[in-house]
Amino acid sequence: MSGSNIANFPSPGERTAREGNRMRVVMIGSGNVATAFAMSLKQCCQVVQVCSRTLANARTLATKVGAQAITNLKNIDLTAHVYIIAVGDDAIAGVLNDAPATDGLWIHTSGSTPIDVFAGKRRRYGVLWPMQSLSKSNVTPMRDVHLFAEGIDDATTREVTTIAGAMSRNVHMVNSHDRLRMHLASVFACNFSNHMYTLAAELLHDAGIPFEAMLPLIKTTVEKLDSMTPAQSQTGPAARGDSSIIDRHMQMLDGDKRDIYNLLTRSIISHTKSGE
Amino acid sequence: MSGSNIANFPSPGERTAREGNRMRVVMIGSGNVATAFAMSLKQCCQVVQVCSRTLANARTLATKVGAQAITNLKNIDLTAHVYIIAVGDDAIAGVLNDAPATDGLWIHTSGSTPIDVFAGKRRRYGVLWPMQSLSKSNVTPMRDVHLFAEGIDDATTREVTTIAGAMSRNVHMVNSHDRLRMHLASVFACNFSNHMYTLAAELLHDAGIPFEAMLPLIKTTVEKLDSMTPAQSQTGPAARGDSSIIDRHMQMLDGDKRDIYNLLTRSIISHTKSGE
Repeated sequence: MSGSNIANFPSPGERTAREGNRMRVVMIGSGNVATAFAMSLKQCCQVVQVCSRTLANARTLATKVGAQAITNLKNIDLTAHVYIIAVGDDAIAGVLNDAPATDGLWIHTSGSTPIDVFAGKRRRYGVLWPMQSLSKSNVTPMRDVHLFAEGIDDATTREVTTIAGAMSRNVHMVNSHDRLRMHLASVFACNFSNHMYTLAAELLHDAGIPFEAMLPLIKTTVEKLDSMTPAQSQTGPAARGDSSIIDRHMQMLDGDKRDIYNLLTRSIISHTKSGE
Repeated sequence: MSGSNIANFPSPGERTAREGNRMRVVMIGSGNVATAFAMSLKQCCQVVQVCSRTLANARTLATKVGAQAITNLKNIDLTAHVYIIAVGDDAIAGVLNDAPATDGLWIHTSGSTPIDVFAGKRRRYGVLWPMQSLSKSNVTPMRDVHLFAEGIDDATTREVTTIAGAMSRNVHMVNSHDRLRMHLASVFACNFSNHMYTLAAELLHDAGIPFEAMLPLIKTTVEKLDSMTPAQSQTGPAARGDSSIIDRHMQMLDGDKRDIYNLLTRSIISHTKSGE
């Protein structure tokens, strides 16, 4: 297939008439991103294979999308239009070494692996990164997830963008450098904030209080971001410089919670001072 | 006044008829909690004085609620029914030393100062803690804020609960010990998670990307908590043990962001392992 075939990706309305011509996708990986992408793409494409090192995992996803489950990259369908690599970043280069080269479009889904990982190994390639914390039981419809697309040249970028547009209404183009910065920022905003909830849940559990009691507080903290910057909305003993409370809290903590409390309190104090 | 006067606190419907009998409140403090409480209480009470060490701050709040602004605790209205201390925890004991004793009900609003701070200094006292990150431009209506009430005896607890019920529909009773644990948990869940947003905003700013681009991700992270625990919904390079990405991120960071990334990554890894 040529790039223009992908650029002329059938719209939902055309799909039924062209059922036999649907874009054929090989999904490499069976984790959170692979599952979310495959489940979304099956609406408009034919997911022909799911490849995972663990057969049971490949089968779980393959069954959901009506695909063949395979474990060996040598067995990928050489006639597919698109190959999506949704594996841990550590494993992307290995996939490219092990899988045969094909005429199709190769796409990885990593926020932090540059597009260069394909250089010299594939001809047509790009990146499609969901700036979202995807999980298998994802609560955000893929239509609402922000997807960031990059291609090795203009034609490929258009192809990646078209595929992205079939999944989500929020498609943006971003280069590898800015994507890596966004990914790092999202680790702070999402992964690290979520870990704060985990530590809070443990503290509440020790006091016999269900975590749900804290959800209104957590939601209000986030709602404030609609109208002010996080620096403006920072509250609490560190922002107030309330050393008496800070000391009392420190006495209640040990282990990594104590180290984290200490480091984050110092960081908030230094940010509050520099922002005054 | 006696405790039963407060227990018979006029309902909104009775207010107009009993305008002259409204509960008289002295607000000590002019910060976020003092402002949110005074603005809410003026609907049903008469806020007679706002006392703050800085006259301008006292005046700002006093003007909003139709109260007298004072700076000297010696000048508080001795005939008020309720005295609310909404100052930094460090300053509560000082307020109790400096302000004359009165027949009214004394209430502090701290999550982390035990009720004992009043012992030997006042006769009728309690605590009314908003488990909420309040700010002067608060987005959560006080009716929705969860308030945690404690009184020195049953009658006082009822009085504090009645005042709380005039402000919010979410009133709970909690003792000092559990309140301190909840307060500590809320520092992690709210103050520390918000600081993660601040650091993410700085990283995005360096890349020329507006913080708003990350709001959908942040909101999804929180929405997941309606259906799973934060430990279950943890994602990202640390949860995956993706050392290649972690190394790449570390190379992009310096200063406190680098220390925080390193410590939180190690904490997530150890939690993920222990949860497997």
